[in-house]
Amino acid sequence: MKKILITWWAWFIGSHLCRRLLNDWNEVYCLDNLFTWNKENIIDLINNPKFTFILHDVTQPFWGQFDEIYNLACPASPIHYQKNPVETIKTSVLWSINMLELALKTKAKILQASTSEIYWDPKIHPQVESYRWNVNPIWIRSCYDEWKRASETLFMDYHREHKVDIRIIRIFNTYGPAMNPNDWRVISNFIMQALKNEDITIYWDGTQTRSFQYVTDLVEVIIRMMNNNIWFIWPVNTWTDFEFTMNELAEIILKLIPESKSKIVYKPLPWDDPKQRKADNSLAKEKLWREPKIKLEEGLKKTIEYFKQYI
Amino acid sequence: MKKILITWWAWFIGSHLCRRLLNDWNEVYCLDNLFTWNKENIIDLINNPKFTFILHDVTQPFWGQFDEIYNLACPASPIHYQKNPVETIKTSVLWSINMLELALKTKAKILQASTSEIYWDPKIHPQVESYRWNVNPIWIRSCYDEWKRASETLFMDYHREHKVDIRIIRIFNTYGPAMNPNDWRVISNFIMQALKNEDITIYWDGTQTRSFQYVTDLVEVIIRMMNNNIWFIWPVNTWTDFEFTMNELAEIILKLIPESKSKIVYKPLPWDDPKQRKADNSLAKEKLWREPKIKLEEGLKKTIEYFKQYI
Repeated sequence: MKKILITWWAWFIGSHLCRRLLNDWNEVYCLDNLFTWNKENIIDLINNPKFTFILHDVTQPFWGQFDEIYNLACPASPIHYQKNPVETIKTSVLWSINMLELALKTKAKILQASTSEIYWDPKIHPQVESYRWNVNPIWIRSCYDEWKRASETLFMDYHREHKVDIRIIRIFNTYGPAMNPNDWRVISNFIMQALKNEDITIYWDGTQTRSFQYVTDLVEVIIRMMNNNIWFIWPVNTWTDFEFTMNELAEIILKLIPESKSKIVYKPLPWDDPKQRKADNSLAKEKLWREPKIKLEEGLKKTIEYFKQYI
Repeated sequence: MKKILITWWAWFIGSHLCRRLLNDWNEVYCLDNLFTWNKENIIDLINNPKFTFILHDVTQPFWGQFDEIYNLACPASPIHYQKNPVETIKTSVLWSINMLELALKTKAKILQASTSEIYWDPKIHPQVESYRWNVNPIWIRSCYDEWKRASETLFMDYHREHKVDIRIIRIFNTYGPAMNPNDWRVISNFIMQALKNEDITIYWDGTQTRSFQYVTDLVEVIIRMMNNNIWFIWPVNTWTDFEFTMNELAEIILKLIPESKSKIVYKPLPWDDPKQRKADNSLAKEKLWREPKIKLEEGLKKTIEYFKQYI
């Protein structure tokens, strides 16, 4: 049994990670400022004696002795971080510093949830970890991607200068129950539109692709990353199991919700939205490999079931 | 007369900026933690009633009412920031946040000294402000360039979200008296080696180029940037007046110190050192133009005179 701290647990990936770690007989402490979500995703866990919820402003220092720290802290949806860019930056950086100082003082292992957003609008496909990016520090999404990249620097330097035992994982698109239905990600958008019989909005011509991983498969990879003996300190992409166009995704969702009266409509692509992003999985497959358990249709069915409570 | 705050004033550019602003009849407050340098560059100013020195840890908040803030804070030499990467990052980010909060609350104008290092190892030449870079967040110099880039994001977001009146200037290589003779920049290295009759060390074959601006010409550009009515919020390169190879630089310096017994020796290029960097000056010339006053040989002569006290 380990004593584990998860930051920003209420975030959808955090709630799944939390359940999985409890299931594996760990003691789990989940810390959040409830900035982007509320407690409903884990309300059933409150009575679990191995589970503790801590409401805390993540820009302020925090103290505690833990074996492992999963640092997920940062609002991840464009709709949130573009509304509060300054808050997003402060959260990302101050919290990373606070957690790295905690790991340094208590000799805890620490995993940083980085993001495929750091690849921004990539010129190679798929994206391998050593790719050096086509980036832009001064546009409206920079508050997220530029600062996540800077956080990687911070983690690497705490490792190089202070020998902190770090892991960096670059998370690509993930979906599943407990997603926020209102955060304007493509899967939640399409499903909510189909359930409400509203037009399904595709930007551009729908041939742009995305690739996704189901959340419990992602959690497995994150835990493997934390528990592997480090062979070398280097960021690792999570992998995505399939790549599809926005047109294909809309059609699958409409097939899975046959009662929907929604139609597909096309709108112009928002400025500077990346057209294609997919992880190069070689490193993750070599070092963290497992067969993904949940296929796209099965994952979408579970997600649709979850979203039905919101219409 | 304006009330002006300069952070990290003891840094060589800061000391020149300070003198120039005092000369223009302003009241100048200079704040530093003396992390990379000491007070000797401004010791003659201590008795000037319009000048105040404030010793302050720049990672802690600071309060005061000023008309303008020149935010120069960050150790700028590789030899310093690679020794203390974590401290470099904290300084860069915490201080930027502290100063932006001060500007926001007091409605001060604020200028951020960014750097040509954000272009890292550029694939186009010269570098125009809109260039999106070939970057790398996880190597040993990232603590400086990655975080300076992230600071630009922070400034842009304080402008967009809170309407703070910002300026961002990307400073290219600068030289002149008051440089630190021990910070391993190429001009100080060559001059000190020539003055001490030591070998002049050129890395690689000496055909890589750099371009420089004399410090008082840079100060003129920085002040123009602060005082221009903002036509649009966008980072501006300072310009450099000439480009030369390392071989040419070594030869000019040896010509200017005819008594030197130094010889030129060649060593391998350190890993990932950029081979060429030069500002695209179009934007600066259009908006901030002035004829540079100090030519290379004249600037080098003044710098050599200054360095003689250190041998």
